[in-house]
Amino acid sequence: MHYNSHLRSVGYCLSAALLLAVGTFATTITAAAQDVQNLQTPKGALVLQGQGSFFVGGETVAQTAIEAGNTTFGPGHVTVNQMYVEYMIPQGGGHKVPVVMVHGATLSGKSWETTPDGRMGWDEYFVRQGHAVYLADQVSRARSGFNQAIFNNVRAGITAPGFQPNIFRFTDEIAWTIFRFGPTFGTPYSDEQFPVEAAAEFSKQGIPDLNSSLPVPNPTYKALSNLATKLKGAVVMGHSQSGRYPLEAALTDSTGMKGLIVTEPPSGCNATVYTDQQIAKLATVPILVLFGDHLVDQAIGTNWLTAFNNCKAFITRINAAHGNAQMLYPPDLGIHGNSHMFMLDKNNLQIADLVLKWIDENVK
Amino acid sequence: MHYNSHLRSVGYCLSAALLLAVGTFATTITAAAQDVQNLQTPKGALVLQGQGSFFVGGETVAQTAIEAGNTTFGPGHVTVNQMYVEYMIPQGGGHKVPVVMVHGATLSGKSWETTPDGRMGWDEYFVRQGHAVYLADQVSRARSGFNQAIFNNVRAGITAPGFQPNIFRFTDEIAWTIFRFGPTFGTPYSDEQFPVEAAAEFSKQGIPDLNSSLPVPNPTYKALSNLATKLKGAVVMGHSQSGRYPLEAALTDSTGMKGLIVTEPPSGCNATVYTDQQIAKLATVPILVLFGDHLVDQAIGTNWLTAFNNCKAFITRINAAHGNAQMLYPPDLGIHGNSHMFMLDKNNLQIADLVLKWIDENVK
Repeated sequence: MHYNSHLRSVGYCLSAALLLAVGTFATTITAAAQDVQNLQTPKGALVLQGQGSFFVGGETVAQTAIEAGNTTFGPGHVTVNQMYVEYMIPQGGGHKVPVVMVHGATLSGKSWETTPDGRMGWDEYFVRQGHAVYLADQVSRARSGFNQAIFNNVRAGITAPGFQPNIFRFTDEIAWTIFRFGPTFGTPYSDEQFPVEAAAEFSKQGIPDLNSSLPVPNPTYKALSNLATKLKGAVVMGHSQSGRYPLEAALTDSTGMKGLIVTEPPSGCNATVYTDQQIAKLATVPILVLFGDHLVDQAIGTNWLTAFNNCKAFITRINAAHGNAQMLYPPDLGIHGNSHMFMLDKNNLQIADLVLKWIDENVK
Repeated sequence: MHYNSHLRSVGYCLSAALLLAVGTFATTITAAAQDVQNLQTPKGALVLQGQGSFFVGGETVAQTAIEAGNTTFGPGHVTVNQMYVEYMIPQGGGHKVPVVMVHGATLSGKSWETTPDGRMGWDEYFVRQGHAVYLADQVSRARSGFNQAIFNNVRAGITAPGFQPNIFRFTDEIAWTIFRFGPTFGTPYSDEQFPVEAAAEFSKQGIPDLNSSLPVPNPTYKALSNLATKLKGAVVMGHSQSGRYPLEAALTDSTGMKGLIVTEPPSGCNATVYTDQQIAKLATVPILVLFGDHLVDQAIGTNWLTAFNNCKAFITRINAAHGNAQMLYPPDLGIHGNSHMFMLDKNNLQIADLVLKWIDENVK
């Protein structure tokens, strides 16, 4: 892959204000490397049949003026639980199966776009390999919005504060160890593949996570199965918090599910939770599970090795039920140092190639 | 512009669940027309030199474990006040000036993408006309995230509920009249250009607006001026809530400002607020102001005619200071029925052409 500077009009001069900002980051984590001038673009043009965005799901609910946050305007209706999806379709698109990508906790669809150090994301790479790509923002996150009613009711004294949903955000310190950038904050593993020099840029991808505000079951499951059905077949790939969502979406409705890619689910693959009936349903769809490296290094709150072993047991159950499930564990192939954010790692396209090969060989 | 169905793999069969969802919308506003199968794509391919996303601005702040929403993980640092930007650069990009587009209240960068009835958005159209396009999510909205600390402090009983920022959302009923889809909810103007049959799809673009949580001045102003500087010159276009942001960004730092497009600011153009010194600075950059039709129809909380007249007075002041400011008011050109969401209207590309013509003729 050859890169060149992406913009004729962009130069190499940072404003004083930006240099100051970089300096601020440097006091807490390794200085940011990425900026507009560092964005890299492949030399070959990206030729699209189409691109754009739309929503899946959503329901109309009545809200009071206080819930809607404007007492001037009075009560009315708003849409909640919709899922934003942006897409790119390569020229001649449709020869290969569409791929839906879903992000993890406190992140958004941005996870699959340009890396923090300015390299191509998986979204564009999969398109360049012939797949239409659909990037979702989970329901309650980013461009999908969330239901603000209870927050405004708490503010107005109508609801007690303790009923307000918790809003979760990874700190830079915790992300470093849990996402396996290195053993302690600021220190990378010797073979680390995450571009740690751009950790401050990665921090900007972090946004508030309101999943605790969602109804049960999580509306994203049904939105994903509906999307796959509308696309008349798709591979659905989740990551981390959403790692198991492809399985849950297939259990909701497997009509459109051509393949399920489960990457780095922190609590594993429900190997001992799913019933035989559920396993039998999941066994009708090819499944790939992906974990990066350094699983034995313990982080607060997440035991990756336990999750990995649980997924191996899940794979055994699926295959015993005549399914097709595989583990992609790069260290087995001599590829070391991948982090939890493998799609942003320095060898992200190498990992993508392994996933693309699995799709080619297993998804009909 | 010729369209065809955008996906070989997408058919016309809605699942029972989706038909049910459409039925639910129909009870409150006109039934949704848009779905995946209605997405339209021009026959000619979109050829990009590059595309992707990045952040501008942002600052690292310390947060307690409660503020970060996870007492397991302990205190640490997160980034706040960053601005997410996605971009597309046409092949051979850089021949024309880049255009930065910013959205309005309770909306996101989605405003400039695919319309609710599946037509091409302004983002792609401007790219097809040779401009690199940068879509921002305002700081505190969508993929830019927001600072969740105070919400978690209220939940924990550390901060009194009354100090929690209000979260604003337009209801469908209020959007209909304030955005000038028609005189009363559910009834369009006879010459209405907004695709009212897709009003339920438009409702899904509505997301919580946390601008009341922002510091003063709004960090988006500086993020926009920094972005224009990094791009070595850009036209910055705001809409509605952000209508005046291009002016505020230019007053912050006009180094990169090649043109300022002010569209539908609900409280006008600060004609009597800006000092002579501020007007002199703004007079160094070409300015276009855009308003749609039906300004005399009064809506709750917004007097569009007053805003329009204030902007006309602003234009007079700029030109008296030897600047170049113009009003684009389509009814003067015999184009009637445009709504507040002109970039989504049925004649959205006709309006885009007028803006593009202004850029060609006025931005050097």
